[in-house]
Amino acid sequence: MGADNQQERLDTKWIVGFTDGEGCFHIAINRIPGMKLGWQVLPEFRIVQHEKDEELLHKIKEYFGFGDVRVNRTDHHGTRKEFRVRGLENLDKIVEFFRQNHLMTSKRKDFDIFSKGIEMMKNKEHLNKEGLDKIAKFISEMNRKPIIEYLKSSETERQNFCFKQE
Amino acid sequence: MGADNQQERLDTKWIVGFTDGEGCFHIAINRIPGMKLGWQVLPEFRIVQHEKDEELLHKIKEYFGFGDVRVNRTDHHGTRKEFRVRGLENLDKIVEFFRQNHLMTSKRKDFDIFSKGIEMMKNKEHLNKEGLDKIAKFISEMNRKPIIEYLKSSETERQNFCFKQE
Repeated sequence: MGADNQQERLDTKWIVGFTDGEGCFHIAINRIPGMKLGWQVLPEFRIVQHEKDEELLHKIKEYFGFGDVRVNRTDHHGTRKEFRVRGLENLDKIVEFFRQNHLMTSKRKDFDIFSKGIEMMKNKEHLNKEGLDKIAKFISEMNRKPIIEYLKSSETERQNFCFKQE
Repeated sequence: MGADNQQERLDTKWIVGFTDGEGCFHIAINRIPGMKLGWQVLPEFRIVQHEKDEELLHKIKEYFGFGDVRVNRTDHHGTRKEFRVRGLENLDKIVEFFRQNHLMTSKRKDFDIFSKGIEMMKNKEHLNKEGLDKIAKFISEMNRKPIIEYLKSSETERQNFCFKQE
């Protein structure tokens, strides 16, 4: 990518198109024994790219005004970096952005579920068992089938509840 | 994806962002014994999606006004469909589109090489050996390293010259 290309400001619709291709709306529910219910709900939005396009991830971060650019993973294909947003306050802005600027692929279904999850967390519903179960069921309807150990296991056997959407 | 979403017209910048994520500029050089030089240069532009988003591929086709929507491949993940453009006349319009609407990722480098190849083919340079060699060298500089049997083998051993960018 030439230096001249780096000067161009990112366009809103470009962000939406790129997210339709490369974005990921992800909610993990991780076993944390010290917490009240024993589970932590961890939503995040991310866009992963090969490190050669790291500069672009920084431009996306600059566009939104929050989030982090960090290593996603390293393997025989090289290192992948990700633009990652966590935290309810910033994720709420992400939800607002994609409510105003519609995704065009079936990833929109994932986004709709994700935004319901964020809404419930804002209402602190994830801190009681009924809310946690509801979030778990929402996530299981996401576009890319996650690993649903939680929903398959009995209540006493629940060990892990992490939804991967690679 | 809801029916209401299907009604929305695709935006130019969305197309660019989606192509930055999912598009592929591809030039194959296939062994065709019956042809003058024994090789056929076959450029194509494609966007591949799971069949659940086939309707969106039709909307992209509608946006450009040419191209085909067809099966890309079927495996254990299901069937993937592709929007595919072949033929110099239409590919020339694709090149013009992305000259006016810049790609933001390093895929732009692939596009630059692709557009040089299309330019050479318009000038019929691929029909003589010097031109064919030049195109072959251009392609070998593409972002995603292709399979370069042609460039590795001696002139008499050349069997296959197909660049895959999956």
